[in-house]
Amino acid sequence: MFSLNEMGKRAVEAKGILAGLSTEQKNQALRCAAGKLIEQTEYLLEANQQDMKQAVANGMNPGLQDRLRLNPQRIQAIAEGLKQIAELPDCLGEVVESFERPNGLKLQKVRVPLGVIGIIYEARPNVTADAFGLCFKTGNAVILKGGSDALYSNKAIVKVLREALDFSGITPDAIQLIEDTDREVTREFMKLKTYVDVLIPRGSAGLIQSVVENSTIPVIETGTGNCHVFVDKDADIEMAVKIIFNAKTQRVGVCNACESLVVHNEIKERFLPALAQALKEKNVELRGDERVCEVLSDCVPATEEDYGKEYLDYILSLKTVDSVDEAIAHINRYGTKHSECIVTENEENAAKFLNAIDAACVYWNASTRFTDGFEFGFGAEIGISTQKLHARGPMGLRELTTYKYQIRGNGQVRG
Amino acid sequence: MFSLNEMGKRAVEAKGILAGLSTEQKNQALRCAAGKLIEQTEYLLEANQQDMKQAVANGMNPGLQDRLRLNPQRIQAIAEGLKQIAELPDCLGEVVESFERPNGLKLQKVRVPLGVIGIIYEARPNVTADAFGLCFKTGNAVILKGGSDALYSNKAIVKVLREALDFSGITPDAIQLIEDTDREVTREFMKLKTYVDVLIPRGSAGLIQSVVENSTIPVIETGTGNCHVFVDKDADIEMAVKIIFNAKTQRVGVCNACESLVVHNEIKERFLPALAQALKEKNVELRGDERVCEVLSDCVPATEEDYGKEYLDYILSLKTVDSVDEAIAHINRYGTKHSECIVTENEENAAKFLNAIDAACVYWNASTRFTDGFEFGFGAEIGISTQKLHARGPMGLRELTTYKYQIRGNGQVRG
Repeated sequence: MFSLNEMGKRAVEAKGILAGLSTEQKNQALRCAAGKLIEQTEYLLEANQQDMKQAVANGMNPGLQDRLRLNPQRIQAIAEGLKQIAELPDCLGEVVESFERPNGLKLQKVRVPLGVIGIIYEARPNVTADAFGLCFKTGNAVILKGGSDALYSNKAIVKVLREALDFSGITPDAIQLIEDTDREVTREFMKLKTYVDVLIPRGSAGLIQSVVENSTIPVIETGTGNCHVFVDKDADIEMAVKIIFNAKTQRVGVCNACESLVVHNEIKERFLPALAQALKEKNVELRGDERVCEVLSDCVPATEEDYGKEYLDYILSLKTVDSVDEAIAHINRYGTKHSECIVTENEENAAKFLNAIDAACVYWNASTRFTDGFEFGFGAEIGISTQKLHARGPMGLRELTTYKYQIRGNGQVRG
Repeated sequence: MFSLNEMGKRAVEAKGILAGLSTEQKNQALRCAAGKLIEQTEYLLEANQQDMKQAVANGMNPGLQDRLRLNPQRIQAIAEGLKQIAELPDCLGEVVESFERPNGLKLQKVRVPLGVIGIIYEARPNVTADAFGLCFKTGNAVILKGGSDALYSNKAIVKVLREALDFSGITPDAIQLIEDTDREVTREFMKLKTYVDVLIPRGSAGLIQSVVENSTIPVIETGTGNCHVFVDKDADIEMAVKIIFNAKTQRVGVCNACESLVVHNEIKERFLPALAQALKEKNVELRGDERVCEVLSDCVPATEEDYGKEYLDYILSLKTVDSVDEAIAHINRYGTKHSECIVTENEENAAKFLNAIDAACVYWNASTRFTDGFEFGFGAEIGISTQKLHARGPMGLRELTTYKYQIRGNGQVRG
């Protein structure tokens, strides 16, 4: 086991090599890694069994156990993921912009890897291979710190991936795993600024918060989504019901699920009963303000706290407003800058909403559940950024790159 | 004086208004602000006098005193700066990308303001107006924390700018100044994440370091430049001398000045005496490795520390290498990812260098001094980013913006 500094140095050395690989070399290695993971299914399952045993002994809740568990189908899916990344276009080297100055200097803004990416995540072994694949394809070296509950699984996956790299004639240090489970080491990792260019936390709000507070490395914040759907007075009621039903119930534990409904007071009598009827099928608990409760007898009164909450559960908060402006103010106040939606047939209100809402993704007449790298057509996703620097919304391969200026002259000096 | 929280809330309210202003409204306000600054020259000079008196009493060094000092010409230049920003194109609302998904969803990536920008800087009153102008033009509200040595000047400038905004019918909270000089308040400001979207430190390495270490707000790191020029064995000697003379001596106290020369061993005998001869004119101290000192008798032996140093002075470190690869390794090790240059007539080596050097700006046959928003044609500059997230190199107006996805559907839900 190497020290963090040693790992940092190795990653920096690796990034220099990775940046120079051809697309085909990278794709070959990704396919090779996919093959090796399948080949080593038994080995991976055994390692995962050790984690699972401990998880059961520690009384880990069933949902988390499910995320931790590997089986042949899941290993197949992980390998498939790497093969899919191999199929995606390589964006490195792309000339993003090109211009010439009056003094004859020729400037090109060229897409290059970020360099060394750190990823801190929880007990989900699939993230290990997935994060490697995305970082590797974009020429980045990656240092992973996974949840300690998945340590055996992660060690096994990383071992297989490193072997595949070695087999492909590429430095295995393209992927390194921090095996020390001491929390102090994780904190130190967050300060490894000399070597690590970007840190991406993936997981719960608590994890992300801790990274934001402790890291000196630039962080891309991902995740928390208190997403709203606003049903305007001119909404198509049937469409509104369909969108909210989908955004709330298609998958409740995800960041792009709808957590709060904002409804124009003038449509509430026609709209709310239809919605409640639909949501009954999934036993969604409704927590509304006074005017909502007047219409829906089995609605629970909402507290202030409800409006700020990402339930990740079959619960929906409801708030009435008297105008699109009030809806915008409410959403900008309680939202997490993730995904927000207006359902309306009124173009003017839609335009106002699309412009005034401060969020990565603003929808007009579509479910917030579409905020996703695959749904956006990126072919991959490392996370959904809720901050404003660098990348906003779904982050695919391109979002794991940066640019540099290459400037060609013939002896120009500054006057 | 408001609390930081109160200032944060006001800035958030202001950003909502600023994002909706027309280009013409903003330009008018900028011109108005320029006019008011000129009108209030007397008032500004009086305030500056108070700072200057204190600076002299505190024994501030002459260089810093000069940066702090205002005079009618400088106020004129500050006002001119605002007028120039008014002339620049408005990039907000630009559709950066536009695509449609098979399900009919129409996605547009639209350029929008970052929101609330915090700027922490030192005792340079010109930054106060300058930073406001750039942030305002890009629809951002700004909260400034200037050096306490410039407090009277900054208060006066901000007062005039706020009056100009008020006069233009725009919320004065587009610009707010933290007047409390307690260091604890500055630290608190760096954690005002609820309200501030981005923090940009401008100033010394120490200031930037402190912000990076303490901020929970995403930071754009600017500044430190240990810039190298590599003179390859196939360099045009006359051009190499001209470039280094310019990069080293045209202005020594700036981040894009050359601090270190890397020279191919095979050209040193022909090149170094010519360079030393030229640099003598400016009394540049040379600190070189053994092989350099063999050629230049009055060269001081360089220590390891020299190669990592941003002198900001008439000093140049010199290092010999045996290949372009060794030059690249040396520069990637000691550089600060700012600006690096190769002087060569060898296209292959130039291409290698341009690709392998990890820096914001990589030059072939031109002075590193061109790394500058104005020289790049951006018409403005808030700083030079040396990190990899969001923006790299000179940051103009566009780099003070982000994007959001506006997604238009007709009832799409996720299957």
